[in-house]
Order: sequence, then structure tokens, then C-alpha cells
Amino acid sequence: MAEAEFIARLRAIATHPAARGLADDAAVLGDLVLTHDMIVEGVHYLPTDPPADVAWKLLAVNLSDLAAKGAEPEGVLLGYPLREADWDAAFADGLSEALRHFGVPLLGGDTVSAPNGAPRMIGLTALGRSAHAPDRRGARAGDGLWLVGAIGEAGAGLAIAQGAEGPAELLMAYRRPMPLLAEGRLLAPHAHAMADVSDGLLIDAARIAAASGLAVTIDLDAVPRSSTLTAFAGDDRVARLAAVTAGDDYALICAAESGAATEIEAIGAVLIGRFDAGVGLSVRDRDGEIALPGRLGYEHACLSPP
Amino acid sequence: MAEAEFIARLRAIATHPAARGLADDAAVLGDLVLTHDMIVEGVHYLPTDPPADVAWKLLAVNLSDLAAKGAEPEGVLLGYPLREADWDAAFADGLSEALRHFGVPLLGGDTVSAPNGAPRMIGLTALGRSAHAPDRRGARAGDGLWLVGAIGEAGAGLAIAQGAEGPAELLMAYRRPMPLLAEGRLLAPHAHAMADVSDGLLIDAARIAAASGLAVTIDLDAVPRSSTLTAFAGDDRVARLAAVTAGDDYALICAAESGAATEIEAIGAVLIGRFDAGVGLSVRDRDGEIALPGRLGYEHACLSPP
Repeated sequence: MAEAEFIARLRAIATHPAARGLADDAAVLGDLVLTHDMIVEGVHYLPTDPPADVAWKLLAVNLSDLAAKGAEPEGVLLGYPLREADWDAAFADGLSEALRHFGVPLLGGDTVSAPNGAPRMIGLTALGRSAHAPDRRGARAGDGLWLVGAIGEAGAGLAIAQGAEGPAELLMAYRRPMPLLAEGRLLAPHAHAMADVSDGLLIDAARIAAASGLAVTIDLDAVPRSSTLTAFAGDDRVARLAAVTAGDDYALICAAESGAATEIEAIGAVLIGRFDAGVGLSVRDRDGEIALPGRLGYEHACLSPP
Repeated sequence: MAEAEFIARLRAIATHPAARGLADDAAVLGDLVLTHDMIVEGVHYLPTDPPADVAWKLLAVNLSDLAAKGAEPEGVLLGYPLREADWDAAFADGLSEALRHFGVPLLGGDTVSAPNGAPRMIGLTALGRSAHAPDRRGARAGDGLWLVGAIGEAGAGLAIAQGAEGPAELLMAYRRPMPLLAEGRLLAPHAHAMADVSDGLLIDAARIAAASGLAVTIDLDAVPRSSTLTAFAGDDRVARLAAVTAGDDYALICAAESGAATEIEAIGAVLIGRFDAGVGLSVRDRDGEIALPGRLGYEHACLSPP
């Protein structure tokens, strides 16, 4: 597989400890946390998504990587291919609104003329600082798997963006995700490992386990579901599995020991699973172990998980 | 003009002092220097350029921005759209070689699947540190305009890459530019203003003058020309004007007072002009003032000059 080979070549280059083997949400260089994520029309967003929402999402996915390392954002740089003046102007206004919302300055970047017919591929680099940036590789046997944030709402929102009838709240979860910056900063001191849920809860939890050399078990009944989501998508096992394999949630998951439960629960985290010696991912509910779905989440090529 | 309007919108957002009004080579946040430049197939490089050279150039243009702020590179993040496995693999190997050459670590980034038919647009973010990062806006009336590096060789190399007969040395100046990192660090403490020459000597000098609210005069006879370049391109006024309006040189120019001449000359800089009260660019040689060419250099859209 060509993508895997390309990434393997880059991993062989990225031997500096700050690169964290290109297996973390962000690079961590001293107290600096750095991430660069791109979004591509037709891959990461729909061509029909409003440009201001695309700008919001581009910023949010990068800030979510900072949140996963407990970082305070310091600024961003934009890499933007110009194409259609109206779309570009609406994107700029949306980016302005999103930066203001999160209190993050635009520090620089580059614009280029996109050749005719080129799909939009927009890049953003975000820089932050964290006194304690948890690694993806640090989970310990016996740690709980904790979750802050909603799971499955963005996946439902994608269905709505594609034409399904449904509430605006879910559509907004897809188009305007909220990076959990405050929660990330509060969780970081307690977390042995932390990541954001961008590709799906199952796959992102499995990545923490694999990076830490452990097995992880998830209790599907413990994963919170809002009444809005259950009203839209139902609440049976099929719906619950759809939620934990949908992407774009930008929730946070972390591994922490049960002794920290009081502090972690105060941040809004819920215990949804457990790391143990071993290998692999198991999912169970009140009726016992569940056969894993064929697809655990989005497995697009990435240097570091977005 | 849509591009100018987009950039005006971004400038209105980028009010943080670290952004330097999006008018400098890089953002400067405390001792951190940050830049993000993209290169686009058919715009910044030829589709026939070898992928390893494209990787070298992408790294070099970003490191040149750091050089212009006197910074020591600390690492880079790559934004890469995957397309053809062979090209991508050769690019990765070339990037590896270039990073090793300059001693810069790859810290992270993102890869995406480029949609079919999409031209390559590759982005790189470079991070460095500088104890004293000269601004583009700091030139003072009476300062000399100093140059380190070759002018016009990359322009000649582009002609060779496009089919002209010529020496490999000039082709390499185009395909494998050398960012002047050591020179930039040595010049920075003496420079009231500094920039790299990426779009052409005339336009980049004029930008320093405009940003500083001054006029600048360049002595065309004082701009050094190698014997290789004169043998290829000639040495008359037309050839000299072609050299100072060609891009991709990645030389450094700075404004510094004549009292620092001894130290600056020891770094290899030559005095090629002067800043004075007033507005605009003048070019002269032994025969007097020269009418400015219609095109001073490349004026592609950019948030910050590359």
C-alpha cells in the first residue's frame, strides 16, 4: 500500500523525540505543541458545506490536537489555495469569526493560486504550549479509559448534511465541532495517555492501546448518548455501534488510574473502559462481548492521527 | 483583484504583533520564528523537476525565511497530498536527504489523498529560534543596502530547466537553492531590517523600503555576478536587469548602517545600495539612472513574502 509506504519512509526520518514517532496528535518540543492538519474538499468536508463552516472545522480539528496534549493555543498559520473569490471571502470571514471565538491569533501563512479545476486542500498549523503534554503511548495496565465530549453526533450530522431530516444541533456538531481545550488542560495532569477522537471512538481508543502495548475493553453501555442523538438515530446496539465508529467527534479520551476518579469526573469525564495487559480491542455491553464491526473508524492516511 | 482582497481580509484578522502585519518573511513570537510556505506544481516548480529537488526546494524556501530572521531551525511539519507512489517515494527520500543536510528534524504533519487530477500543492511549516529577529519594517534613512548570496543564477537555472543549454551549476541554483542560515544569524545583530530575496532583488528591496517608509536606490554595477552567470547570460545592462528581476535566489538583503561595514563585509555581504527619506525604488549604474523594468520580480499572492 503506497500510502503506508510513504508514511513508513517519513517515520524513518522523524527520529527526533519531539516527533513522537509521528504517532501522536501533535509534536511536543519542550513546552511547545505543534500540529498541522489539512482538509480536502470531498474527503474531509462536503463541497456543499458553507465556507465559513469549513474554516471553523479546519481551525477546530487543529485546536483539538492541541487540546489532546493539554495545550493552550498560541497561534496558527494558514496555507490557502485561492480559487473562487466569493468562496474565498466567505472562508476568510468564517476563519476570522472562528479565531475570535477561540481567542487564537493568525500569525502568518501562505496563499497560492490554485490551478484550474484543483480541489481545495487547505492546511493549518497550530502552535500551543503545555506544561504537561500526555503521550499517546503512556497508558498503563489497570488504567481506566475516560471520555469527555459527545460521541456519534457529528456522524449523525454528516447524514443530515447529506440530505437526511434531522435537528440543526446534530448538523452543527458535524460542521462546527468544538475542540475541548479547557477540558484537555484540566485532564492532562491526570492522564497517562490522551488523544482526541477524530476518526471514531473505537479506532482512536485502539490506537492508544496499541501505542501503549496494551489491550483495551470498551463498555458500550457506558458511552453517553444525548436524547437528541437517540431520537434521531435510535438506541439499539446497531445505533450505538454506528456512533462509536463515526468520525469527527473531537471528544477527548484518556487513560488514567481510578485513584484520580474524583478529579476526572469533576471535569465531566465518564469511565467507558479499561486498559489491561494484552493486545487488541474488545467491546461489550450488558449482554456480553460484541463482535467488532468491520470498520472501527476512518483509516485515512495520516502522519499523525488528526 | 480577488487575491488582494482575500489577503486584505486576512491582514485585518492578523492584528497580533507576532504576525508583523503579514508583511514579513515569518511570524516572530518571542524568540520563536514560524513560517509556512507552499509550493505548487507548475507555479513554483516545473512538472519535470525531479521530486527530490522539489523536496529540497520546499525545505530550502522555508529555511530561507528563517535565515532572514536570523533564526536557528528547530524543526518542520509537512502537509503532503499523496498522488503517485513512485513520485511520492522519491519526494520522501529527497526530503530525508535535505533534512539531514541542514540538520533539521521532521516533527510532524499530515498526509491526505489528493483527488484524481489534482496538481500537487505541498506545504511546509518551519519553526526556529532567534534572539534577534530583524523586522522588514526597520530600515533607517542613511542605512546601506547589503547583499549576501548570488543573484540571477536561479533565473538562469530556470531557463536551463526549461531547455536552454547551460552549466549544471546554474541549474542546481534553481533546483537546489541554499538557504543562508549561518549568514542570517551573523547578519541579524547588525540589521535594522532583513529579508530573503525570493521574488527578485528589485521587488524584495522595494518591499523593505516601502515597509520602512523610505526610498531605496540600488547600484546595479555593485551587484556581484559570477563568471559562470556572465558566461551564460552575458554582462550587459539587459542581462544585469534580468538577474535582479529573476526570482528564487534565496540570497539575503539587509539594511544596516555604514558603521557596521567591517563586521558585515566579514560575513560576505556587499554594499549594493542605500535607503533614504522618500518613497520608491531607483536603480542606477555607471551611466546614471535606469528606467525601471515593467516587472520588478514575481508578484504572486502571498500572505507573507516567501
